[in-house]
Amino acid sequence: MKSWIETPSGSDFPLENIPFGIIEYQGRRGVATRIGDTVVRLSVLAHHGFLGFLTGDQLQVFEAPELNPFIGLGKAVTREVRLRLQELFREGNSALQSRADVCRQAFIPVREAVMRMPVHIGDYTDFYSSIEHATNVGKMFRDPANALLPNWRHLPVGYHGRASSIVLSGTPIHRPKGQTRPADEGPVVFGPTKQLDFELEMAFITNGSTPLGSSIPVEKAEDYIFGLVIFNDLSARDIQKWEYVPLGPFLSKSFGSIISPWVITLEALEPFRIDGPTQTPEPLPYLRQSEPANFDIQLEVALQASGCRPQSICKSNFGFLYWSMAQQLAHQTVAGCNIQVGDLYASGTISGSEPDSYGSMLELCWKGTRPLKLPDGSERTFLLDGDSVIIKAYAEKQGLRIGFGECETTILPALP
Amino acid sequence: MKSWIETPSGSDFPLENIPFGIIEYQGRRGVATRIGDTVVRLSVLAHHGFLGFLTGDQLQVFEAPELNPFIGLGKAVTREVRLRLQELFREGNSALQSRADVCRQAFIPVREAVMRMPVHIGDYTDFYSSIEHATNVGKMFRDPANALLPNWRHLPVGYHGRASSIVLSGTPIHRPKGQTRPADEGPVVFGPTKQLDFELEMAFITNGSTPLGSSIPVEKAEDYIFGLVIFNDLSARDIQKWEYVPLGPFLSKSFGSIISPWVITLEALEPFRIDGPTQTPEPLPYLRQSEPANFDIQLEVALQASGCRPQSICKSNFGFLYWSMAQQLAHQTVAGCNIQVGDLYASGTISGSEPDSYGSMLELCWKGTRPLKLPDGSERTFLLDGDSVIIKAYAEKQGLRIGFGECETTILPALP
Repeated sequence: MKSWIETPSGSDFPLENIPFGIIEYQGRRGVATRIGDTVVRLSVLAHHGFLGFLTGDQLQVFEAPELNPFIGLGKAVTREVRLRLQELFREGNSALQSRADVCRQAFIPVREAVMRMPVHIGDYTDFYSSIEHATNVGKMFRDPANALLPNWRHLPVGYHGRASSIVLSGTPIHRPKGQTRPADEGPVVFGPTKQLDFELEMAFITNGSTPLGSSIPVEKAEDYIFGLVIFNDLSARDIQKWEYVPLGPFLSKSFGSIISPWVITLEALEPFRIDGPTQTPEPLPYLRQSEPANFDIQLEVALQASGCRPQSICKSNFGFLYWSMAQQLAHQTVAGCNIQVGDLYASGTISGSEPDSYGSMLELCWKGTRPLKLPDGSERTFLLDGDSVIIKAYAEKQGLRIGFGECETTILPALP
Repeated sequence: MKSWIETPSGSDFPLENIPFGIIEYQGRRGVATRIGDTVVRLSVLAHHGFLGFLTGDQLQVFEAPELNPFIGLGKAVTREVRLRLQELFREGNSALQSRADVCRQAFIPVREAVMRMPVHIGDYTDFYSSIEHATNVGKMFRDPANALLPNWRHLPVGYHGRASSIVLSGTPIHRPKGQTRPADEGPVVFGPTKQLDFELEMAFITNGSTPLGSSIPVEKAEDYIFGLVIFNDLSARDIQKWEYVPLGPFLSKSFGSIISPWVITLEALEPFRIDGPTQTPEPLPYLRQSEPANFDIQLEVALQASGCRPQSICKSNFGFLYWSMAQQLAHQTVAGCNIQVGDLYASGTISGSEPDSYGSMLELCWKGTRPLKLPDGSERTFLLDGDSVIIKAYAEKQGLRIGFGECETTILPALP
């Protein structure tokens, strides 16, 4: 499909994508999409009647400061909006193209667009769904011969995370301070973390709410998934190691987690649906699915030391995940936990089987024993102040590319 | 202090209390207080100029469907409102008493008042701050000789909880279903929990927000605490046991947690401030406090089997907690986690040193080995369908009583 709006070759955002995000323009936030290097304000299109199948109240959602009201219209409506936008932008359709006045108001070059947090996140769960990652962590910290804990193959292990500290790509994060115990029987000390790490993750956002006590069947779970973003779950490994027993990670993962600005819909990703890994033992019936439920999305992490060019340090794939998004959401609700519009569910670190596909410094450098070499000659085992972490994600086959753009953050020194 | 509004002797809500909550009246929610058995709608008082020191925008907060905008005005303002209400209700002050028209609109008998969730909870943390509870759990599940984990005396252990599943007192909760593994090497099974438990907790609500990266010093922490509620953290122990390694409790604690409807301010509790237990070893400087930071609040749990009268099964005290609220909040933010207006921070189960002061069925019945006998002759080791759990909390000395009312829930059978 070609668009009359210029779309550079290899762009993450061709006509087939149509992502949704929040832009700030002249002091006000509103819903936008992006095609090529053009950001399009949907409130302008709605105002001029280009989304005429929506009713009056529905049209207001494009003026909200977050995607929640739009997403909350439900998949039938958001899918229709996406198809309508594709129609309007398609080469040969002059309905919008002929209205230079509307285009002038609605179109903003991406370099001038100020992006904001796409959703207000009510609750956030972080899963732990990569078998390679869980195995690596088990080998490093527990028993190499029994790296996976007994529950891991039976359920998608996950934990509640902190929603308030999730911020937009481009937000720098101060190195966190906290308690650590460097030696097992040694003194407890306080100071900036010495083991600051990224975690390569993806996250999905829900579009509906359920009453407390009800559950979402696994075969219906995707109906509740609006779309996905890239997620960088920054972690302080030394703080984590000391604090996490017996109730899980806490301050080591609530000082800043980063998401990419554009939410890519499940519809845009449909051509990239694949089977996940074979699950052994077969999951309990509430987690059993008969259709392919993984997505072949290529992931890449680059580390950019201050003053250097970015260096690729990891290539992984969202399709590696052992537990699918549908299984995660079915599990999340099986005991009766209610969900809401705008919840965020992250995958956990996505590692592959090869050492250059590990999704964290902890694994890439194997607990500090195999330093990474950077172009400036320096070495890393964990992140240093001034380092930037840039995560990219895209799906690509047969000339079709659906991308996520990037998720970037820079580490600032600890505050005094 | 006496009020011209009738206040039954022994009421939890004398003139010295002045709690805040949300009432639904004629289809609309708004801010209310309570004195004796009378609920007072603050929007009516504001409309008639009785809170004249507030500006126009500030007066709107009483018409919000949750306390967040009111709380968010900050402690200087909310304290002033509370003092003004005490003044208006005080015997001898006829300013409001003489306005029968206003009183008729503003006053609602408590038996007719429909209470709603007092706050929109952004993030929720559950601490684990009772040394007696942590020790009991350690004795039961780990090593009786080394019941406390190494980090416990160094930091207030806590974890992120699920905010969406926190509901108001009076909401019944369905028995959750989930995966368990009854025998260590046996099969994994799915079904309704067989070990449904309550947890006797208190929780505080924050009144301000901080930027990501900043920390709240322990000596300033109480400035960010608006007030407290009773909290019942329902738990499914068999689900918890199977799922919680290595990332903490998840579905076992997100199927329903209950809070009491009235938020009791820190100011009302000031007369009951006491020293907490001696902390050994001395905490790190960021957790060190020189002033008394615990509160002497009596707690009582009653279990009511269907068709029976409530039976008291536990008496404990909020003052038993090892880590204070100020220490919890200082710790929560020390790595840079931001807080927001309406966050909820729960204490963790509050057990005392005596067996009848343990704050959960798990401890009271010592892992099922010491059943409780109920008035109808039945026994309990965990909660059965139809059981109600009623938690009361009040502070009392020298004729002054500041109470929380109660926090109640009834267990319904698992949904099919």
